[in-house]
Amino acid sequence: MIENVPGAAEAARLDAADPLRRFRAQFDLPDGLIYLDGNSLGALPHRSIARASRTVAGEWGRTLIDSWNDHGWIDLPITAGLRIAPLVGALPDEVVVADTVSTNLFKLAGAALALRPGRRAIVTDAANFPTDVYILEGLAALRGGIELRRVAHDQVFAALDSDVAALCLSHVDYRTARIEDMAVLTRAAHAVGALAIWDLSHSVGAIPIDLNAAEADFAVGCGYKYLNGGPGAPAFLFVARRHQEAARNPLSGWLGHAQPFAFDGSYRPASGIRRFVTSSPPVISLSVLDESLQIFAETDMAALRAKSQAQSDMLIRLVEAGCKGLGLALASPRDPDRRGSHVLFDHEEGYAVVQALKRRGMVGDFRVPNGIRLGIAPLYNSYADIAHAAAHLAAVLRRREYDAPELRVRAAVT
Amino acid sequence: MIENVPGAAEAARLDAADPLRRFRAQFDLPDGLIYLDGNSLGALPHRSIARASRTVAGEWGRTLIDSWNDHGWIDLPITAGLRIAPLVGALPDEVVVADTVSTNLFKLAGAALALRPGRRAIVTDAANFPTDVYILEGLAALRGGIELRRVAHDQVFAALDSDVAALCLSHVDYRTARIEDMAVLTRAAHAVGALAIWDLSHSVGAIPIDLNAAEADFAVGCGYKYLNGGPGAPAFLFVARRHQEAARNPLSGWLGHAQPFAFDGSYRPASGIRRFVTSSPPVISLSVLDESLQIFAETDMAALRAKSQAQSDMLIRLVEAGCKGLGLALASPRDPDRRGSHVLFDHEEGYAVVQALKRRGMVGDFRVPNGIRLGIAPLYNSYADIAHAAAHLAAVLRRREYDAPELRVRAAVT
Repeated sequence: MIENVPGAAEAARLDAADPLRRFRAQFDLPDGLIYLDGNSLGALPHRSIARASRTVAGEWGRTLIDSWNDHGWIDLPITAGLRIAPLVGALPDEVVVADTVSTNLFKLAGAALALRPGRRAIVTDAANFPTDVYILEGLAALRGGIELRRVAHDQVFAALDSDVAALCLSHVDYRTARIEDMAVLTRAAHAVGALAIWDLSHSVGAIPIDLNAAEADFAVGCGYKYLNGGPGAPAFLFVARRHQEAARNPLSGWLGHAQPFAFDGSYRPASGIRRFVTSSPPVISLSVLDESLQIFAETDMAALRAKSQAQSDMLIRLVEAGCKGLGLALASPRDPDRRGSHVLFDHEEGYAVVQALKRRGMVGDFRVPNGIRLGIAPLYNSYADIAHAAAHLAAVLRRREYDAPELRVRAAVT
Repeated sequence: MIENVPGAAEAARLDAADPLRRFRAQFDLPDGLIYLDGNSLGALPHRSIARASRTVAGEWGRTLIDSWNDHGWIDLPITAGLRIAPLVGALPDEVVVADTVSTNLFKLAGAALALRPGRRAIVTDAANFPTDVYILEGLAALRGGIELRRVAHDQVFAALDSDVAALCLSHVDYRTARIEDMAVLTRAAHAVGALAIWDLSHSVGAIPIDLNAAEADFAVGCGYKYLNGGPGAPAFLFVARRHQEAARNPLSGWLGHAQPFAFDGSYRPASGIRRFVTSSPPVISLSVLDESLQIFAETDMAALRAKSQAQSDMLIRLVEAGCKGLGLALASPRDPDRRGSHVLFDHEEGYAVVQALKRRGMVGDFRVPNGIRLGIAPLYNSYADIAHAAAHLAAVLRRREYDAPELRVRAAVT
């Protein structure tokens, strides 16, 4: 810890008055750690420890194969989807948990191409989350004859024309935290007859989302960031009800079959969202996600958003006051209504700065080329975390702690 | 339990002399349960309980995002693959754990089409495991212009010609347990210039496999059957070293990128097998698989195979002696060298028979249309299990316990 933390008194008052304060105790966070990386890997809920143990020792160990029915494993993709639906403005039968964000995007972009026969283009922002772009590249190469239009952010509208089958964008930018206008962009896609596919990975669980109000067609999202589902937790996908009977999952596996245990010789898709499940889910990881999601039923996204905005505003204010003249620049939108739940600051020694912060017991992350990314998870981050984070960052810059040569060696994951 | 079990004395002698006997104590099996369904869901190793707890509370909870490096999460797909490689006759750098069998088959069949440009056909056995057929259907529909040749088992050779890109078969048939001659069929595929893709789901961990001796090109396999990786455990895939630099993963996600954290604008495949990883693995489920696999390092596949054959021979002998005239027919090869590690008996009331066995504390499974499938996992099944299983089956048939009407209502998973 450090002394004379600017904003500490204000933070103490805000924490005392915080209506979400009680949630922090539901998480197993190491004492003293300032964890501003819940946007990369959400913290561990205590209840999830018990659920993992129950799934392994109590279900797998006691009832073995019968657990698929007796403990509802077979329905977990739907059950967990039901918990996510209200967080994204979906109907209960529009969300399912399966596979990974990348694989789900492949399924939905493939389905979009089939729903728009004759159209040969997919549009995305060149600065979209890289794996989304890579997946679209792979799909285009496999399909053949598909043009992937990777355009600058301000060229997205201009790239839409009658040859476009789908527009794929992230709701919140993984670097800057800029929020896209989902309704406006979806309308622009629809105006040329294209489908809109949204990646909610950096927004779900942190900011309110209303897919149906925006008339979104498809969406995917991540289970292990703000949803706290655990490392590599399964992802989810959304298919608007109006598309469910026509859309085909190109990864047509047995668990999306109309009768999985009929062992038919040919694939017949299940009705509804279930056809977008491909095969057996990783039950232990999925159970843990299902458990973590239950925390969200105890609050609402408006309350989480209000706290997140207050915290990110405070973080920007304290950092800018404490780091004046030290080479730091805000790279996120200043308008809190255009900013998600993380804040990016650029600094030319960004990588080493993040390492120096870690030595002080503060975890953020680095994003190329020089971004210091600080994520705010309003379920468990306190205002005290915010004030201390700003003070640590100022101290690292003022004392040039990032100059230590051992901080410049990059590990595999940063 | 039942009295006067035929073969009980023989079983006791064989159990006393069993060189693998000590392994049963490594599994958490309910007292008195006769579990012959390890080919659907392997039993829980004690060590995996501890590993799940360590991964959740000890790693995720204590070191959060840093666990990707500090606890080797990022390398788990490779680490677990290294443990599987010797079980399937692969080189250490030819196997990786990722996703599901269905998704991995999609990747490899897609890669095969790209490696054989101009060829328009994929050949499979119409009686192949259904999800394999469904996945090939989905791939063919997405690609367009692909002919999926689903042929009778005895027509596989005739279906191979110069238009075939890939031959996809299961090593062991999920119903009959018939073992395919991997070397002969691979050679036949190569003779017409096609690639051979093998599904090892029903053989890996139960019978010796030598992919490289057979010159197999690609393979996939299941983590939750004989490998005891837990419900829905991640699957694995094999790519022969000679194909690794040319083969492209159509599910080209960030974790298969040459530099995942460079966040490049375009996909560049990692060198070697790593390019067949798509995205973040479900770490909790994957850790449990990684732990369960370590048991195999304490024995060898020849010893496991010898016990499995002795047990399946004994099972057939005792069942046929005890069930004479009761409508049961062996549907698996009688020759133990052509039979995997499960045995299928047909009975017209097969479904209700399996339910009646369950009431007696014996778990097998039912496979349409009328198969009673009994799986032998030599790591934990005893000869006493085999003798008791045969006695229970005989009792159910002799007493017509399958006539109980409540046994005829089918649950979602059987």
